[in-house]
This record gives sequence, C-alpha cells and structure tokens, in this order.
Amino acid sequence: MTSSQLDSQSSAVRLGEQLERLATWTAPGEGVTRASLTDAYMAALGYLEELARDLDLQVHYDAVGNFYATNAAPGEPSIAIGSHIDSVPHGGRFDGTAGVMCAFEVVRALPGVPLTVVSFIGEEGSRFPWGLLGSRCVAGQVTAEQLRRLHDETGTSFFDAAQARGLHPEDVQSCHGELRHWSEYLEIHIEQGRVLQDEQLQLGLVTDIAGMIHASLTIHGRADHAGATPMHLRSDAGLTAAEVMLELNTFAKAASPTAVSTVGTLELRPGARNVIPGSATVGLDIRDRRAEVITDIVRHITTFAETQAAERHQQVSYEEALHSAPVALDAAVVSGLEVALQELEIPHRRMVSGAGHDAMMVAPFVPAGMLFVPCRDGISHAPDEHADTAHLATAVAVVTEYIRNQRRTTPALAAHA
Amino acid sequence: MTSSQLDSQSSAVRLGEQLERLATWTAPGEGVTRASLTDAYMAALGYLEELARDLDLQVHYDAVGNFYATNAAPGEPSIAIGSHIDSVPHGGRFDGTAGVMCAFEVVRALPGVPLTVVSFIGEEGSRFPWGLLGSRCVAGQVTAEQLRRLHDETGTSFFDAAQARGLHPEDVQSCHGELRHWSEYLEIHIEQGRVLQDEQLQLGLVTDIAGMIHASLTIHGRADHAGATPMHLRSDAGLTAAEVMLELNTFAKAASPTAVSTVGTLELRPGARNVIPGSATVGLDIRDRRAEVITDIVRHITTFAETQAAERHQQVSYEEALHSAPVALDAAVVSGLEVALQELEIPHRRMVSGAGHDAMMVAPFVPAGMLFVPCRDGISHAPDEHADTAHLATAVAVVTEYIRNQRRTTPALAAHA
Repeated sequence: MTSSQLDSQSSAVRLGEQLERLATWTAPGEGVTRASLTDAYMAALGYLEELARDLDLQVHYDAVGNFYATNAAPGEPSIAIGSHIDSVPHGGRFDGTAGVMCAFEVVRALPGVPLTVVSFIGEEGSRFPWGLLGSRCVAGQVTAEQLRRLHDETGTSFFDAAQARGLHPEDVQSCHGELRHWSEYLEIHIEQGRVLQDEQLQLGLVTDIAGMIHASLTIHGRADHAGATPMHLRSDAGLTAAEVMLELNTFAKAASPTAVSTVGTLELRPGARNVIPGSATVGLDIRDRRAEVITDIVRHITTFAETQAAERHQQVSYEEALHSAPVALDAAVVSGLEVALQELEIPHRRMVSGAGHDAMMVAPFVPAGMLFVPCRDGISHAPDEHADTAHLATAVAVVTEYIRNQRRTTPALAAHA
Repeated sequence: MTSSQLDSQSSAVRLGEQLERLATWTAPGEGVTRASLTDAYMAALGYLEELARDLDLQVHYDAVGNFYATNAAPGEPSIAIGSHIDSVPHGGRFDGTAGVMCAFEVVRALPGVPLTVVSFIGEEGSRFPWGLLGSRCVAGQVTAEQLRRLHDETGTSFFDAAQARGLHPEDVQSCHGELRHWSEYLEIHIEQGRVLQDEQLQLGLVTDIAGMIHASLTIHGRADHAGATPMHLRSDAGLTAAEVMLELNTFAKAASPTAVSTVGTLELRPGARNVIPGSATVGLDIRDRRAEVITDIVRHITTFAETQAAERHQQVSYEEALHSAPVALDAAVVSGLEVALQELEIPHRRMVSGAGHDAMMVAPFVPAGMLFVPCRDGISHAPDEHADTAHLATAVAVVTEYIRNQRRTTPALAAHA
C-alpha cells in the first residue's frame, strides 16, 4: 500500500466520522433536516468553525452568512473549495455536506497551500424558497429588498432571520467582494443520479451545469359528463396532455444525448372520475447543457401541443416559472482535473450536471470545476441517501493531485509551496 | 293552434313557474343546493304536498322518505311517474326536479287515470355518499344497518337524520312493497349531455341505462431526479399512464358506438415538477349498454398497461371501486313511447343513458321507460344548467299520449278511463 493509498484510507475514515457528527445537528424526525439559520444550522456551523480551528484556518462570514475558512493571508489569492450544509426537510447526510467536509480534507492534504473552505447558505431553498441563495448573493444577483421579501412558511423574512443571527443582510452587495481573491472554485458533490453507479465509475467530471426551464402548459378543452357525452362529442384536455407527455419524451431523446425532459405533475380539472377533463396543466422540466437545445424542445412541444389541441378545438397556454441558462465549467480546470483522474487511474467519465449547484453561480466570475461522487441508486433528498466515503476520499485525492500539478507547472505558485 | 298545442303551451308556462318556485328552497350560495333531509329539502317536499293537494292526490312517504302522491284507490294498480328533487351542491334547477314536475303535469292531463307521482330521496349521493339511495331502498337492496353506517360529512347517519324527520329507516325493507301496485314506471329527465342539442332533437327515447365500471389503474415505476437521470435510465410511470389514456380512448371508440371511456383523474407521485413520476394512478370510467363490452375494454386496457409497463420494468395494479350492470328498459314501454313520439311528430332518437337514474333500480321489478329532454350545452350539476320548458311540456305530451294509447288498446284499462 502506497502512502497516498494510506492517506486516502484515513481520509475516508475521517470523512465518515465527520459526516456522522454533522448529521447529529438536525431538527427532529427521520433523516437530516437543517434549514438555513435554524438552531440546527447554526450548531453545524459551530462544528465547521471547530474543524477550521483544528487546521489553523481563519473563519469569517459575509453579510448573508456564507461561511469561509482560509489559510490565505489577507489579499493573497486562494483556491476556494466548498458546497453547502443546509438540507431539504428529511434529507440525507451527503448532499452538500460531503463537499464541505472534502474541502477540509484537501486543506489537510496540502499544508501551506492557500485554500478557502466555503459553505454557502440556503442552497436548497427549503426554508426560504429561493435555491442557491448564498452563491446568488456572491454572484451579486440579490438585493436587500429581495431578502426582505423572501419569507419562510412562518412569515419570517430571510432578512430578519439573518439579522437575528447577527448578520448584515443590508450589506448583501458586499458579498460579491469575496470572489476577488479566489483564483478558482472547486466543488465536490454527490451525483444525485444513477449514471456513475450504472456504469460502475468512481467519479464524474462535470463539464457543464445544464440550463433549465420549468414551465406549465395548459390545455383548455371542455368538461362534460363522462357518461352522457359520446366519444365523438368530446373535447378532452387530458388526451392532448397525454400526447404532449409522450411527444416530449420522444423529442427530448432525439434532440441531444444530454437533454432531459420530464413531466412530473399533471393536473386534470375538475378532477373527478366521472367528468371529462375540461383543462389539463402539464408541468414541464426541460434541461440541457446547450440553451438552443432547450429552446428547440420548448418550441417543438408548444407547437405540437397547439396542433393536437386544434384538432380537438382546444386552446393552449404556456407559462414559464423558471429559466436558468446553462453554465459551462472552466475548460482549463476541467482538463486539469481530468489529468489528475488519469494519473490516479480513477475510472471516471465526463458528464453534465442536470441539477443546479452553487458552482453555477460562481462560474461566470471565477474559473470553476466540479467532481461528482456516485450516490447509491441515485437516491438523494431522502434519509437513505448514501455515498461511499472511499469515493469521497478519492475525490479529495483527485483535487489534491490537481492542485499539486498546477503548482508544479506554474512557477509563480510553486514558489509559495 | 290545436287544443293539444294550447295544453302544451300552458303546461310549459306552469312548469317554468313551478321549477322557479322549487328553486327557492335551497341552501345559500349560487345555484340550487338541496341535499336530502335538510331544511331546504323538507320545505321542497312541502311544496310537492301542496301540488298534490291541488290535484286531489293522496300523499304518503315510505320508511326512508321516498315521496308518493296518488289518485289510485288502495290496492288499485297505477302508473308511477317520477324522479328526484335532491340536488348536488350548487347544482341546477332541472336535474331530477323537472321529472317530478312533469309527473304532476301528466296527472293534470289525465284526470281519472290511476297515476302515482314519485320523488325518490337521495338520488345524487351528495349528502349521504351513496347515489340512487331511495330507489335502491325500493329495489330492496339496502339494510337498516347500512343506513346506520351511511354518514354525511358532519358524521350524521342517514338513519339518524331520517328518524329525526319522523321517518322509520328501521323498516327500510318495507319500501320494496311500494312497487307492488305499479304497473310501470316512467321517468322524464334532462339528458345531461349534448347529443340532443347537437342533433337538434326535441326528445331522447332511452332504451338502456349503461353499465359502469369505476376503477383505478396504478403503474409502479421509479421516482428519480429529473435533472440527474438521463432518459435511458428512467422508469417513468407517467409515460405509461399517458399511453393508457390514449389507448383507452382509441379502443373504446372502436369497441362499440355506445361505449364511453374516460380518464378524469390522474395522480402522478410524488408530484413535483423536478421528480420523475415513481407511480401514476389513472382513474377509469368505462360504460356501455352491454356488460361484455365493458369487460372487453377493461381486459384490453389492463393487458395493454401491463405490456407497456413491462417494457419499462414497471408493475401494474388494478382496483375496482364501483361496478354496476347495464339495465335494458322495457321493450314494450320503449316502443309504446316511440309510437307516441311518432304520432306527435316529435324529432327524437333512441339513445343509451350514460348516467345512472332511479329508473335503473326500478326496472328489474316494474316495466320502466325514460325520456330525455335536451339540456343546453350538456351542462348539468351546475348553476347554469338549463332545459327548455317547451321541451319538458313536449315530454309531458308524449307520456300523456302514450298512456292514452295504452288505455285505448287495453280494454280492461279503457273501462276505467
């Protein structure tokens, strides 16, 4: 066994213990429930501070509560590595947290290298319903006014909750300054899908974060009595909806190998077994790494819906709820990580992240890269979410190797090592 | 203008006034809300008693509150004519009530002919959730124990509510005896569909009441992250459900010209836009005048669902919630009504009732017939339900003519006329 294999083994053991410890800070109930700014969340931040102290890192928070622990001198550039430690209700112990724990491991593996461990607040949007909140603030996309209007279910605004924790949400614009000294941003995250498991790979090298459209397509037909209305006199909105579901699936498969399209919700109205659906609302989730593919799919499915609807004398309306552009991760960072993966002979593949991650908010400003760790049966956001700590330790080893390579090939950096 | 045309005109005016009056006994809110045994319902029965008194009819109620008003001497056979005066919440003023008001008009038109006006209780199942309740009791299908277990939303049983109104639900078995002296049963009802309007006909001659299956077909696939799961790794239960919806529609059209099949409900679970449906429950409503056609459709659609599901490694479960056999109305009554329709030159057609009616409970015991009156745009169970009183008066004229013909051709009856 080589020393790097031994490092990796002890790293895996430590990651297991730390993730177990972190999982104890949760609201009651199954799995992990740790919404931003709750007592459980603040206690978990306390644990991050403890880990930072052990590694001689300086901790600070920005105006909205993003956590930073760094060994860089003031003004010195560092590589930021991180993710988030908030969770969905009754989620697992790996989503986000695994990436933050891995970041501490990289710091441990690279003494003297200027690094910053980052934990973004409010990634899940599970308490304050706006995903990627902390990294959005860092991207300079959020105003104090918006934080005042962003409420949890009890009516408490993020603004007030943050102030109550001694933060300064009124200075949200200052968050963007944090990026100034990051030379790049790296994120390790569980895959939340089953591709790596299915292909028996140890890591995924993320090249792009898919763009996404969430939209509703509503077909307006005519509700009639299911018994008293013969088939030829119907204008059944449900049938058009069914055609849309099948066509979306067929078209998305053909449109691009990376495109995914899903109908996860369908509302038939009035929604009684003995009434022909008068209207049907199809919830669309369309993603790809290329914006034009998304646009193509949307154009095709709305045109298709209109054609099918017209045959039944129906109208169609389309409403977009969410539209995020695809983000390509930095080509140099991706190839650098790939070199490290090859050197360490880690079975891996390039892949597109279908889910959004904090890296996508940072990427427009700082060269960013991501590694995916396999996740058992693709299960995430559930108590039985599971990732192998050996895979997490492998990700740590790859990032460590990547940073070492970088410092070897960049004389200016190597001088500091 | 002939005297029968004049009769018909004054009948239409009277029917309009009576239906308007009847609509005043309603719970608050839009349209007519008159659930069985409520104050509004009891007040409306008071109005029926008033109409009966004006026509010298004897009123009585059976054990569960079905209303009878007759001019027949005790033990003398009579033709029963009726429907119901309970309504769905915020329903219209014609469903059921139109038939009861028409029955009084027939009595008015045929002085001296032994007739019984019937108003069945609880046809809609809108308060106590069991449709055709009163006629079911008359058919001898209901026990006192069942009435004790049949509760409204507030937890009051039909049994208790009936006793509180001075009725004797404990004697429910005695209701069946009411049929003993009925030589036949006739019902006039709004169509609740758009066939007659579409074909510009004045009346529908009902030959059969369709049998019906209400069932749930559940497809068990696998829920996965909509972003992180590529198309080829999915087991999307929603797609199989969509295929079932379309196939059911295609197959039912081909199976029989009278068959109707509807998917009015579809539940995708977990039901989030960004989660691939792990399971889907399709609500089926399948009807036809022939039991074997219904069986064929069910067999085909379950086999089809299993085949499609198997391709996606999914399972299918099927659960029947309701199964009622088709009922053929009496052939002699139907032809007799047809002769009257032809004599009076009323544009009409034979048709199958897709909806259930009290006549279907009576038909196994007493020769039964039904006429449908056109209903504007097929709208029913809604405040804007509308039937033309001229059409109602025409139905009265047809029934009157039919009974007159019968008495002319049956010497024993003619002797009484």
